[in-house]
Amino acid sequence: MSDFASRMTGSARRLGPLCVGIDPHPGRIPDLFGGDTPDGISRWGRGVVAAAAGRAGIVKPQVGLFERHGPEGMRALQDVCAAAREAGLLVIADAKRGDIGSTAEGYARAYLGVDAPFACDAVTVNPYMGIDTLEPFLREAEANGKGVIVLARTSNPGSADFQAKDMGGAPLYARVVQALAPAIARLMGPSGWSSLMLVAGATGPDEARELRALAPGAPFLVPGYGAQGSGARDALAGFVRRGNRLEGGVVNASRSVTFPASADAAGDMAAWTSAIRAAIDAAQADLVALSGATENAGSVIGG
Amino acid sequence: MSDFASRMTGSARRLGPLCVGIDPHPGRIPDLFGGDTPDGISRWGRGVVAAAAGRAGIVKPQVGLFERHGPEGMRALQDVCAAAREAGLLVIADAKRGDIGSTAEGYARAYLGVDAPFACDAVTVNPYMGIDTLEPFLREAEANGKGVIVLARTSNPGSADFQAKDMGGAPLYARVVQALAPAIARLMGPSGWSSLMLVAGATGPDEARELRALAPGAPFLVPGYGAQGSGARDALAGFVRRGNRLEGGVVNASRSVTFPASADAAGDMAAWTSAIRAAIDAAQADLVALSGATENAGSVIGG
Repeated sequence: MSDFASRMTGSARRLGPLCVGIDPHPGRIPDLFGGDTPDGISRWGRGVVAAAAGRAGIVKPQVGLFERHGPEGMRALQDVCAAAREAGLLVIADAKRGDIGSTAEGYARAYLGVDAPFACDAVTVNPYMGIDTLEPFLREAEANGKGVIVLARTSNPGSADFQAKDMGGAPLYARVVQALAPAIARLMGPSGWSSLMLVAGATGPDEARELRALAPGAPFLVPGYGAQGSGARDALAGFVRRGNRLEGGVVNASRSVTFPASADAAGDMAAWTSAIRAAIDAAQADLVALSGATENAGSVIGG
Repeated sequence: MSDFASRMTGSARRLGPLCVGIDPHPGRIPDLFGGDTPDGISRWGRGVVAAAAGRAGIVKPQVGLFERHGPEGMRALQDVCAAAREAGLLVIADAKRGDIGSTAEGYARAYLGVDAPFACDAVTVNPYMGIDTLEPFLREAEANGKGVIVLARTSNPGSADFQAKDMGGAPLYARVVQALAPAIARLMGPSGWSSLMLVAGATGPDEARELRALAPGAPFLVPGYGAQGSGARDALAGFVRRGNRLEGGVVNASRSVTFPASADAAGDMAAWTSAIRAAIDAAQADLVALSGATENAGSVIGG
């Protein structure tokens, strides 16, 4: 099996760097799908998958919004992950897990293992407990061609509380990235990118470039594009030129592409799917206009 | 409904400070229960609950070891939580969740909400993303008489990587505890203890006393007692004298009480239950010998 970084880079080259966040917020699931029930979020998530296929390379279900429905919600997550992989999409389970060794093994098997119940391509993890707690995830990733995405700098206001605070001359998030250097090297793939990614919700282009300098080989998962407020230029600030395009990870959009106003008005599935497709195409085009040509398109390079 | 801290303090006064960790490790579930399957871990976990009832006041299922079995594993977690609450035990879901606001709301509802699918009394959470990400948990805890247990200092070797590093004159874990002061005050209950607890895996008595000084009102969830190596004296180092006993939280033991060697040899359920009960009684007695009298016992005070 190929490594995760090669699959991710390949899909970004082909279609653009957009990652479609699948976040079943309470009260937002259209009646078309049965509303906010385990069945409803399963059908809605699979609807998003069907709309995204061929337009984006990667999707990111937000586990907490499935888990709130209990075991049946986790069944819906399983459905959505399976549908996405069948449709040829890469799947990031946004689980933000982290625990001591033996328990981390449980989470690593749940998301990255051979026959993982929540079969995905990569999972997000929290580094607070220390590098040893990431080891079970790294091991499964290495063995099975999966990715591990470590929270470094998140995009919420409270990320300033600890992540941005100085720890002996550099902010905590930089210390996390520095401590990950051996893991980034260990998961380096033939694409020139590692399957150890970083959540890099930079507050501005300077911080994004600083993160890039600290970890030249780690792709970024960039949150905060679209509804959360940042534009394409900010989102791509940590990307680097490779050939005729900017590379460096994926940029997530959730609400702006899965709950666009145009979809609220959709009276049937075809209209809803068209609305989601148009929103995905617009976001992808916005990013590609700056990141440069996809393999199937011309060579317009912005930036 | 009473506040979590009152229920926890009451149970510790009655029975002692032992918390029984329910960690279904792969390869450790006895054949008696059907082995390492969703059904097997459900039956085993409920067996531990039945053995613990009346002997310990609180149990702590380790979510990752259920989640590795997918939705059916989460169903088993649900079974174990329900059985524990029916048996009058308090339940800490050791989930170590954490995410930005809207997703954190999902997790908070999953574990602490009214009609939460994983109905428990408290949940462990990770502070890395910042105080705002804990707010949804605090809100559910306040509304529903639940507890929130924040990772401060964990007991794994890698906890030195970030938690113990200096951040402007104090280690990160101390900065986390300081930042939690308003939340600790907000969840303060009539017992004189807050329903905001801290995971306090102190490496020694000095650090435990430092943590206690930083957060006089926050009960500790102390990991690392028993199989992980520390003795009762270390485990209780952050407890304080109240009346004729030491109070300050609960002390978790998992493997030493749920997988004692005596249980491996048990040929039937009665023998297995006796072995677990004996292990729980021994751990509880070891802790009570130092922490002081339970309400139903004499007034032997060590320490």
